[in-house]
Amino acid sequence: MLRAYELSHLLLRRSLQAGDWVVDATVGNGHDTLFLAQIVGPKGCVFGFDVQEEALRTAKKRLHGLAQVTLFHNGHEHLSDRLPKSASDQLAAVMFNLGYLPGGDKAIVTRTETTLSAVEQALSKLKDRGLVTLVLYPGHPGGADEAEAVRSFAANLPEAFHASQYGRINCLHRAPELLVIERVS
Amino acid sequence: MLRAYELSHLLLRRSLQAGDWVVDATVGNGHDTLFLAQIVGPKGCVFGFDVQEEALRTAKKRLHGLAQVTLFHNGHEHLSDRLPKSASDQLAAVMFNLGYLPGGDKAIVTRTETTLSAVEQALSKLKDRGLVTLVLYPGHPGGADEAEAVRSFAANLPEAFHASQYGRINCLHRAPELLVIERVS
Repeated sequence: MLRAYELSHLLLRRSLQAGDWVVDATVGNGHDTLFLAQIVGPKGCVFGFDVQEEALRTAKKRLHGLAQVTLFHNGHEHLSDRLPKSASDQLAAVMFNLGYLPGGDKAIVTRTETTLSAVEQALSKLKDRGLVTLVLYPGHPGGADEAEAVRSFAANLPEAFHASQYGRINCLHRAPELLVIERVS
Repeated sequence: MLRAYELSHLLLRRSLQAGDWVVDATVGNGHDTLFLAQIVGPKGCVFGFDVQEEALRTAKKRLHGLAQVTLFHNGHEHLSDRLPKSASDQLAAVMFNLGYLPGGDKAIVTRTETTLSAVEQALSKLKDRGLVTLVLYPGHPGGADEAEAVRSFAANLPEAFHASQYGRINCLHRAPELLVIERVS
């Protein structure tokens, strides 16, 4: 079956074009950053955020100095501060991959309050038909509460946004799930 | 955004191969039947079920006598009776598109009891990694109850099956949603 992150990639491939401006809100090891950079190409822009220097070092190696990528050593709640003014209503996609850094310190996790702040900032900068994707991990301590908070936030969005959910329903341990929010007006 | 039926097509395209045996449990106007017939090709088999003669007439026109398709003028709850014995553990996919026939009599709808019976029969005949896809329509009278019953059935399936759900979450009117059940052992 399609995993949550696979569906996010598939939806972004359908939606994004060369030259687009996008954000990786949780750079981590840089897999999604590279994925985005390859789609938007040298005429596009990818802005990446991460609080962990270790993650940014790994990501930089993976990105081989691709000029379309700008990495910020900041949490994603600083999205509005750090993005250029010209990014307003300009973002074609913002990706979130919540939880902890794979292979890193599992005590360093995304937090509900900063995640929700970042999602709100991301939505406010989306262009028409732009997407925010969130892979939620309810399995680690605090993860279920964060997932529930983000789900509840998305379920209460006004009609200018379409929020959709994808995930396992017959699962005793909590599997990752995908939320996708599209700006439709 | 990807609609429920679009995701079902996408998952089936990834999963099916030429020569596969598959079922369209709700032929209707034959769109999904043709979709399946084109994927499995002349060496595959598509078995289709519908209770409405009108639907089968329309579907036959659309299918232009493709030899890999066998249509039954029966409800999908007769799946086990009508399929050849050799279809056991052989089905690569069974598609359900619930509700009423588009453009037809809206009083003729799929019914929870026969739908659940057909889904159970379909699951019992899936091969390993085979998929049952169900597009649910909670919008028409009885549709929400049927959707809830199928969702609840899927959520309680044992570990030999992975059940996943995809659909809108910030929607006042009830949008179509997709359930996908994969046999994993």
